[in-house]
Amino acid sequence: MEYKSTTNNMQATTIKLKSRPVGLPNANDFEITPTTLPPLRPGEVLLETKYVSVDPYLRGKMSGTKIPRFEIGSPINSKIIAKVAASNSPDFTEGDYVSHYLDWSTYQIANGAGLENVDPAQAALTAYLGVLGVTGLSAYFALTDIGQPKAGETLVVSGAAGAVGSIAGQIGKLMGCRVIGIVGTDEKMDLIKSKFGFDEAINYRTCGDIKAAIARACPEGVDIYFDNVGGPIADRVIENINTYGRVIACGAISNYNDVDREKSFSLLPMVVYKFLRIQGFLIADYRPRFPEGIQKLQTWLSEGKLTYSETIIKGFDKLPDAFIGLFSGQNEGKMIVEV
Amino acid sequence: MEYKSTTNNMQATTIKLKSRPVGLPNANDFEITPTTLPPLRPGEVLLETKYVSVDPYLRGKMSGTKIPRFEIGSPINSKIIAKVAASNSPDFTEGDYVSHYLDWSTYQIANGAGLENVDPAQAALTAYLGVLGVTGLSAYFALTDIGQPKAGETLVVSGAAGAVGSIAGQIGKLMGCRVIGIVGTDEKMDLIKSKFGFDEAINYRTCGDIKAAIARACPEGVDIYFDNVGGPIADRVIENINTYGRVIACGAISNYNDVDREKSFSLLPMVVYKFLRIQGFLIADYRPRFPEGIQKLQTWLSEGKLTYSETIIKGFDKLPDAFIGLFSGQNEGKMIVEV
Repeated sequence: MEYKSTTNNMQATTIKLKSRPVGLPNANDFEITPTTLPPLRPGEVLLETKYVSVDPYLRGKMSGTKIPRFEIGSPINSKIIAKVAASNSPDFTEGDYVSHYLDWSTYQIANGAGLENVDPAQAALTAYLGVLGVTGLSAYFALTDIGQPKAGETLVVSGAAGAVGSIAGQIGKLMGCRVIGIVGTDEKMDLIKSKFGFDEAINYRTCGDIKAAIARACPEGVDIYFDNVGGPIADRVIENINTYGRVIACGAISNYNDVDREKSFSLLPMVVYKFLRIQGFLIADYRPRFPEGIQKLQTWLSEGKLTYSETIIKGFDKLPDAFIGLFSGQNEGKMIVEV
Repeated sequence: MEYKSTTNNMQATTIKLKSRPVGLPNANDFEITPTTLPPLRPGEVLLETKYVSVDPYLRGKMSGTKIPRFEIGSPINSKIIAKVAASNSPDFTEGDYVSHYLDWSTYQIANGAGLENVDPAQAALTAYLGVLGVTGLSAYFALTDIGQPKAGETLVVSGAAGAVGSIAGQIGKLMGCRVIGIVGTDEKMDLIKSKFGFDEAINYRTCGDIKAAIARACPEGVDIYFDNVGGPIADRVIENINTYGRVIACGAISNYNDVDREKSFSLLPMVVYKFLRIQGFLIADYRPRFPEGIQKLQTWLSEGKLTYSETIIKGFDKLPDAFIGLFSGQNEGKMIVEV
């Protein structure tokens, strides 16, 4: 293979962590900076970033509570779909599309390790970041493995119009559950009922007493709570939970910007009395089972039993704003930046 | 079999729930009252109460948060060792000792359902309420099944000088864990180290900053927390918990008398970040595996690898006081009333 020096002095733009956010992140916590790429060495590929996955969990890596954390002065990193712009690797050809955890950079050099080919003929490229990616797999494994849903049970999903929540709710329906979604706008209420088939929707901003609203929507109580938000909403759902209830702690977006730890009621007595299981979910634990999950999700997609929403924002430099927008629910479904 | 009318007009004394306790229970919540037993019918046995198990979980059944609850005007009910005083059943002989959930009554009639024979030649009768009963089985199944201890891990047990805690800590040692116990007196510190083999002990009343004391005792963090107390102690342990930590919610005695729900920090963000599992334990779920558990416990006992403490209070009418005494830690090991 011919040695290519395509990247000699090539310029890219990179977004680095400038300071650890305190409270709601703002644009000043990020630095958009030009970088110069070194020449491509044997075995390496030059990647052109196409789509960037923008996710709430990145907040924890910015403040350092989620390990491994981002370092100040280093690039932010998330799941990205990139095009192989040049290749010195026998494994990749110019024009291939690949997916991996990559830096927030318009171009970058990779040694090929961990890059997965994605096929734009089989699904939209963005689907590999969402329903066929970590998002869909998280919804699938968290719900089935931690939630253990049984037909006839009541499942409540918060962040129900979000990337994971919208998929989790649909999978709950496929498993025979009655599914109630909690969202923050009337538009999202309509969306989750009409597009995603939720049985009922609650707008936590307008429903008044959230505990009572959940009780009304769940006359037989809550068997499974798929939590994407944490905070008071989670507390109000858990107050409605049945004996042997399961809480899937998949995300806690309402708490991610907390400066002081939020006060809550002590969960432990209820865990004791009701024999609850509250479990945190880590998608990496399910890596050996990814093929099973992807096959399930792909089958449901092709059968028309599963659908998804995306909020696609154009422009690499919009990444910080897209990320900050997650915390006010600017997204319907998966938040993606198209470069 | 000859029909016996031993109980014709026989007098017994019974302790009934007079009012649902608010806060710490007091003697006025109980009514000690004479009862007259009807004649013994075919198939029935007359039971003479010998030893009564006095347990924190009864508090929840008194206030009604734990189902099935006790009804006002009905007898309190817990695990009891009784002697068969008269039998109209082919399955039981006068002089047999049996164990079951029975009423707090000096004498009572039972139809034989659920009564289990216990053999005073094989172990002390009180052991069937403790280490070989629900107490020991709870420690064994909660620790092994929810806690999943691995050799080298750090286990923290609260209520460590109590009935379940003292057994759980010893089983943790048998499984190769480093075991730290939290107790409320210096005498109990000595006890759990010298008698039960805990590696370290913390007196939460005198140690100062509990979180820091746990951190000092657990330089590699806490992998498993066996919680018998709930409340702020539980919170401080959980603040020291490692990624993939497990919290066994076996009891929350510090919260059982709460009138208002205690404020705590919101656990859910930490569950998300650290992929924790927090699970409530119900011994009844393990009924099919009781023989396995009893065999394990009996083997360890006979090999001298497991020991136990009991606090035995004499006098049927001392039952309310013995129960109330649990909440100020009056017991070392299992609290039992001998009639």
